[in-house]
This record gives sequence, C-alpha cells and structure tokens, in this order.
Amino acid sequence: MELLKRFKEMQMKQKAYGYVLTLAGWDSNTEAPRGAFARRAEMLGVISGELFQLNTSKEYQATVNGLFEVLSDLDDVTQREIKKAKKALDKIIKIPMDEFIEYNKLIQLSQKVWEDAKENNDFKSFKGNLEKIVEFNKKFIEYYEIDDHPYNILLDEYEDGMSMKEYDDFFNTLKTDLVPFVKEVLNNGKELNDAFITDFYPKEKQKEFADYLINVLAFNRENGLMKESVHPFTWNTHSTDVRFTTRYLEDFMFSSIFAAIHELGHATYEQQVDPKWDNTNLNGGTSMGIHESQSRFYENIIGRSLEFWEVHYPKLVEIFPKQLEKVSLDDFYRGVNKVEASFIRVEADELTYSMHIMIRYEIERMIFSNEIEVKDLPKIWNEKMVEYLGIEPKNDTEGVLQDVHWSVGMMGYFPTYALGSAYASQFYYAMKKEINIENLVKENNIKAINKWLKDKIHNFGGSKTPKELLLEVTGEEFNPKYFVKYLKEKYSKLYL
Amino acid sequence: MELLKRFKEMQMKQKAYGYVLTLAGWDSNTEAPRGAFARRAEMLGVISGELFQLNTSKEYQATVNGLFEVLSDLDDVTQREIKKAKKALDKIIKIPMDEFIEYNKLIQLSQKVWEDAKENNDFKSFKGNLEKIVEFNKKFIEYYEIDDHPYNILLDEYEDGMSMKEYDDFFNTLKTDLVPFVKEVLNNGKELNDAFITDFYPKEKQKEFADYLINVLAFNRENGLMKESVHPFTWNTHSTDVRFTTRYLEDFMFSSIFAAIHELGHATYEQQVDPKWDNTNLNGGTSMGIHESQSRFYENIIGRSLEFWEVHYPKLVEIFPKQLEKVSLDDFYRGVNKVEASFIRVEADELTYSMHIMIRYEIERMIFSNEIEVKDLPKIWNEKMVEYLGIEPKNDTEGVLQDVHWSVGMMGYFPTYALGSAYASQFYYAMKKEINIENLVKENNIKAINKWLKDKIHNFGGSKTPKELLLEVTGEEFNPKYFVKYLKEKYSKLYL
Repeated sequence: MELLKRFKEMQMKQKAYGYVLTLAGWDSNTEAPRGAFARRAEMLGVISGELFQLNTSKEYQATVNGLFEVLSDLDDVTQREIKKAKKALDKIIKIPMDEFIEYNKLIQLSQKVWEDAKENNDFKSFKGNLEKIVEFNKKFIEYYEIDDHPYNILLDEYEDGMSMKEYDDFFNTLKTDLVPFVKEVLNNGKELNDAFITDFYPKEKQKEFADYLINVLAFNRENGLMKESVHPFTWNTHSTDVRFTTRYLEDFMFSSIFAAIHELGHATYEQQVDPKWDNTNLNGGTSMGIHESQSRFYENIIGRSLEFWEVHYPKLVEIFPKQLEKVSLDDFYRGVNKVEASFIRVEADELTYSMHIMIRYEIERMIFSNEIEVKDLPKIWNEKMVEYLGIEPKNDTEGVLQDVHWSVGMMGYFPTYALGSAYASQFYYAMKKEINIENLVKENNIKAINKWLKDKIHNFGGSKTPKELLLEVTGEEFNPKYFVKYLKEKYSKLYL
Repeated sequence: MELLKRFKEMQMKQKAYGYVLTLAGWDSNTEAPRGAFARRAEMLGVISGELFQLNTSKEYQATVNGLFEVLSDLDDVTQREIKKAKKALDKIIKIPMDEFIEYNKLIQLSQKVWEDAKENNDFKSFKGNLEKIVEFNKKFIEYYEIDDHPYNILLDEYEDGMSMKEYDDFFNTLKTDLVPFVKEVLNNGKELNDAFITDFYPKEKQKEFADYLINVLAFNRENGLMKESVHPFTWNTHSTDVRFTTRYLEDFMFSSIFAAIHELGHATYEQQVDPKWDNTNLNGGTSMGIHESQSRFYENIIGRSLEFWEVHYPKLVEIFPKQLEKVSLDDFYRGVNKVEASFIRVEADELTYSMHIMIRYEIERMIFSNEIEVKDLPKIWNEKMVEYLGIEPKNDTEGVLQDVHWSVGMMGYFPTYALGSAYASQFYYAMKKEINIENLVKENNIKAINKWLKDKIHNFGGSKTPKELLLEVTGEEFNPKYFVKYLKEKYSKLYL
C-alpha cells in the first residue's frame, strides 16, 4: 500500500528530528554551558521549524487523512498509529509556522531564565517569559477549534481521555477520604529519631550508593546511564538509550536516593518497551500517568518498604558508618516514611505529595479558565500552601519557582503525577494476587518484579491506552480507592 | 540581493543540521551507552540524508553557482564564503545520495567497532569496516573528477592548499635536519630521575589539577566545559559553546595534564573566534593545521616550559605531596620533556612526535596510491615503527589501532598534526618579537598571551586562509626551519 509506505517514511523523519531535539534537551539539562543557550535556541529553532514543516506539509496531511479514510482496512496496530497521528495533525496544522518557531525558541530560552530566577528568588525576572508561554498555549488552544474547555485540551494531551471531570472526582475523593487521615497523621504527635536525615552526607559517597541502587534495581547499563542535574528527570528516545538523572544534596541524602529510584522506575519502563514499536508512534511509555505509576511504584512501594531496607540498609551503613551509627533499621524506615507538611514537591513524602499536586492543578485550572493572572501566582501559591498544608513558603524559590515544568511549556502535566501514584496502588493490589512482592524484595530479586511489569505493562509501549492497561491488568477501571487504601494501610501501621 | 538572501537562509539550515549532528557526536564520544549506537546510526543517518539533500538540492546549486558567476560584484568576505561553498558543492553533488547516507551510517557504527577492536587487540574485527571506509573514500574521490592524485584531494580537504609536494618537502626537511638530532638525543645516555612519571596518581586528584589548569589558562567556563573521554578531543559549534575532553591514566599523569592543555588550546582558539562569523561558513578555526598550531603552542611551548612549571609545580606538589616528595623542579621539568622512542602518538614527546605522523602520512599515501591494502596495515605499521623509532609494538592496540581517526573516515588529517607543530614554532618566533612570552608565563598572565593570539589569529576564524595568516602574522610563508630551530634550541639545552 503506497500511502502506508509514504507514512512510514515520513514518520522516520519525524523520529529523527525528534531524536536530535531530545538529545539536545538532555544536553541542555545536564551539562551545556550557560553561554550556549542563545545560539542553541536559534539552531534548534531551525530544526523545530523543519519538523513543523514536515508535520504540517500538504503531503503528510494527505497521507494521514487518506489513511484515516480507509481506517477499517488497516490492521489493529496501524489503526492506532493512524488515529494517534491524525489527532496530533488536526491540532498542529492549525498553528501558524512562525508562531510555532517563536514558541519553541521561547521555551528553549525560558528554562535558563527560570533557572536564574529560581536561584535568585526572583519571580519577576521569570514572569514575562511565563506570561508569554501561557499566552501561546491559550492561543494555540483557540487555533485547535475543539469544542471543549481549554484546560481539558491540555489535560488530554498528557493523559489520553482525562479531563477536569475525572480529575475533579479524583481530587475530591482525596479530599474526602484522605485529607482527614493526613491531618490525623500530621497531628499524631509521635516523635521520630530522625536527626540523621539532615546530617551531612558527602556527595561522592552518595554517588556510590546511587550506583549500588542501579545494580539492585537491575537497571540495564548497556542501554542507559545515570547522571546529575538540577531537576531529576528521565530521557528517552528508544529502549536501547534510556538515561536518567538524580541530584545530590549533602544535607538531605534522601533526595538523591529517592530521585534516583523514581527516575530509574521511569527508565526501566522505557527500557522494557518492546523495540518493535521503535519505528511507530506507539513507542515509549503510553502516557504520563502510567509512566508516573511506574516511577512511584519503584520509589514508594518498593523503595520505601521495610523489606527493601532490611536488605539494603546495611550497605548504606557501610558507606556512612558515622552518620548512621546510632540509627536503627526501624528509625531509618520511619525516617524514610516521615510525614510532614513541606514546601518542595519532589521531596514531599508519599502521603502529603498529592496535596502539592492539587495546588498546581487548581492553579492551572484557574489560569486556563481566565480566573487569575501570572503575576498573581506567587500570592495564590502561598495561600494554597497554607490552605492544604498549613505552611507558607518563605520565598518563591521554595514556592512557585520550584518546578521546571511551566518554563518549558508543560501545562496540564502536573495532575498526572498524583494520578500516577493512584494507578501504582491499583497495579500493586493486582500484582499482589500473582506474585509475592514482599518476598521478592527480601530475596533481592527485583528482576522478577521488573519482569512482571514488563509482561503486563512495559512491553506494550503506547500500543495500549491507559484505560486499556488498567482494565486488562487490574480487571477494573481507574479507582482511586486503592490509593487511599494503600496509604491508610501503610501509614496506620507507622503512625497510629 | 535575492540570491544572497536565499543563500543565507539555506546556510542557516545547514548550520542547524551540522549543529545537531555535532552535538550527537559529542554525546557519542563522551557518554552515550553502548547499546544506543545501532538505533542512533539509523536516526543520524536520516538527519545526514536531509542535510545532504539540502546541500545538493537544485535550488542550492543554482544559488551558489549563480552567486559564483557574479563573484566580483560581492564584497570580499562574501566572495570567500561563496568560493568555499562552491568548492564543497562541486564535490558533494557528485556523490549519489544513497551512498552518502550509507557512508554516514558506516562511520557512525565503525567508531564503536574500532573501540571494541582496540580494547580487545583485534584488528581483524575492525578490518572490514576500515576497508569499506577506504573504498568509500576512493569512490568519492573518483566521483569528484578532479584531475589530481587521490591523496592530494584528501590532504587539501583538511589543509587548504597543501598537497603531497609540500608535505614531502616538509617531512624531507625533518628527515635531513631533525632525525640526526633526534638520534643524538636518544643516544645521549643521560639518566633522568623520572620514576615519578609512572607513579600512581589517583584520578580524582588529577581532576583537581586539571581543573586548576583551566583557570590558569584563563579558559572561559561560561562558554565551555571540560569532560572525560577515551580519546581527548575538542568539540565546537560556535564560540559560546566550546567543549573539550581529557583522559585520566592513573599510572601516567602527564597524559591528563598535557591532553587537557592541548585540547584547551584548541578550545581557546574556538572561543576567541569573533561571533560575527557564526552565521557564515567562515566560522571556527580556519584549518586543521592552524588549529593544531594553537593546541601545540599551549601544550608544548607554554605547557612544557620551565617558566610554566616554576609557577605551577608547587600546586602539583600540594596535590600529590607523597608522589613528588623527592622530585625537584628540575627533575620534573626534565620529566615533562623526556625524549624516548614510544608507541602511542598522543603521549609521544615533542621531539619524536613528528615521526609518528610521518608513519601515518606514508601509510595513507600508499593506501591512496593503491600500493598497499588495509589487511597489511598492522605489518606495515610495525615495520615503520622499527624504521623510524627503532621499536616494535607488541600488539595492535598500541600499534595501528591506537587512533580513532580512520574509524570515523578522517584520512588525510594526520599530516596536519605535524604541520601544526611547525606552524606553532613559526608563530612563536613572531610572537617573541612583540611580547615577552616567558615573563608573561612567569607572571601567570596567560590572558595576555591569549589576547595576542586572539588579535593576530583567532579573531579571524575562517576568514583568512592558513597561508594568509602565516604571511601576515610572521611575515613569511610556511618555513619548517623554525620548527627545527625551536626543537634544537630547547633540547640541546636539556640533553646535550
């Protein structure tokens, strides 16, 4: 079929452009010198422009639309490919090329502006860029001419099929069923032996332990690596080159440990996607929410379990004998799961984490409902922190400036983080029926867990939707009750 | 002028493609996981194909040829741009696109094959790739239909205007005037206190000193960085993003010190090119030979001078107090300039270095004169090592497999290394007439030396040819006598 052949050819080009742009992003985030960014933005602007031209070319439109018309003649996988391509195409052709290029230059540059603003606690210096980014997003959404709330369009972009309706339900469940429990835990008054958490842990030694963790979690080093960056992230183009970062805070070692395990979860997902999807648009993880379910599974369900530290705490003590001299395994396990109201999302504990997401969700929801303006963000942010967590950030660095996402145009992304945690719990109870997770962790056999996830989830890449995966793996649709159940079971034991 | 505007637009695209390909090369050479290479070659093959299509498009041809016809109407700089573009165009349009893509995939993959072959001392496993690379080069040269010896065409590619005639003259001068002197030095029988050279120097400590050197040599960290790789190299796209690598051998510290200074020399050249050339094809260093003259200048003329170590040896002793406890400054200076017949080019001393290049020059010359075959390279290599240096490599890892160049298709490149050393000496005697180099080094004022080089050489980027620079900076054409003079002056004092 000639049309399909052409589609495949053009898709290879799209992939190659995407590949080099992603590679440049990795470089920008992990090592590019600061002086490089202006010229870099210009160069990558040209490449993005080329990709845009390809994605909107008459030929590509004719090919995708042509195939869409004969959809029922195609096999199931190709149907999915074409539907996905058609959905993206219908959006992108509506955006004028010069605006697209301008936007891409803007987000290339804004990340550095954000970095500086965060470092200098200077929201004002970032405000202009953020306003432009929001404006571009609103404008682009208008161009789409989709009859829906602007924020729903962004939400759907990051999690297929999700809208404010589902998220409102989800967060309302948390408010009803979880928030009272969180308050109970926060007010339980238990004293922890936790001074060790903020002891001094030299970076080089932390690196040694992070390296050890990579082996424990059976990460494939032939097809990936770990590096360091300001904001930990995972970088994926194809299953044989998956990279992730962590960061080292010498006065807060948990940051590097759990960022490493978290990102390693993302990376393991990507490494275990069947390479047969490489040349299709169904490669990589299927959605942000499912992706986050995997990173949260490794970080929290495995990485913060008692069984995990029964096996690996001795190694940590070996590396930090002085700092951990008087810390029992039980102290350490409780420290790892310490619940407290705190400012920084990426360091928030498992229980209060979704409160951080609620704040961002509500802010984004208001921005795209035109209820608030960018200039008001610091104030609103701080008010919501007081409302949900009872604490007020001392400055914007630990407030509204803490996360990279908005600076690179990711809006509608944050809610998938909380969704991921909830998915993870639902997968967890399904997995428990088939394999003995706790025993496998005790036997240091993470490979067996990786394999279960590979067979049930990872393998399929984007060829199954989040909804399909949930239904097939757990036997039911998304149900936030599992999340609440999991948290209550775990933290009742710990705190109540 | 419409034609010129089109030319500039197309050139921006060429630059953007070149940029991402170069970035991917940096990544490949410094950190990409080994499993990544197959897919990466495929992706970069697509990008190279796009670039090739642009470079050979009817529109680009018409534009360049059109401008070439009205050359005398253009300003001097634009004339140079068009001439340079025309020269490249006349070659590339002769190569069939599929062969070009195949070749690029081949050299993407061959580097890894070479790495493995070198690691496992297994020339056979690399032979097939090298044969293909040679065949491609021969075929491409035939396509060019230039009435000249194939090797001259390659030589000219790396050093504008150089051919076997000039190089034969150059190497003959060395044979006549230098080789007897080298033999005299090698046979002088002087004993050095040099056991410290192969003492154990922990990598982390070496890194500390390399970092110190970056400051001493006034490298601009805002616009560049240093990293680690198997084979040290410099990476440049534009003057605000210039990176270089070194490597750390714990039983041979000089390797990291002088590789770092050498590459830093290249990097300083790139950083000091006027950014006004960024959007032209006259950006970056003007030629391989001039580039190498700068790296050699920093490495040997500054970095191996007594004055340099008078100032910086105390710092090294501070970092390695035990290893250097009984090593006087004089011992150290002599160690740094130790002359001996050795196997590895990049670690060869200043005096015997050009012998290594002669071997590669003669081998390449024979390959492209169809006098020898790839399969015979190990044998021929070892014979020539015996002939020029009196030593025979024990294996191919320290013989024919030691250098990356051929695996990435760089043939005709090696001779520029020796040429660079000779240029450096000629520049040195010119510089001496204007500034007191030795005093500036003693005063730790390398900035003043950087500035002289910037004003006289770096600034101009590729807007002046090597021949023009030599004539303008030194007042005469290339003259290898300065190289011989410099070496005899320095090594007579040290050894005779």
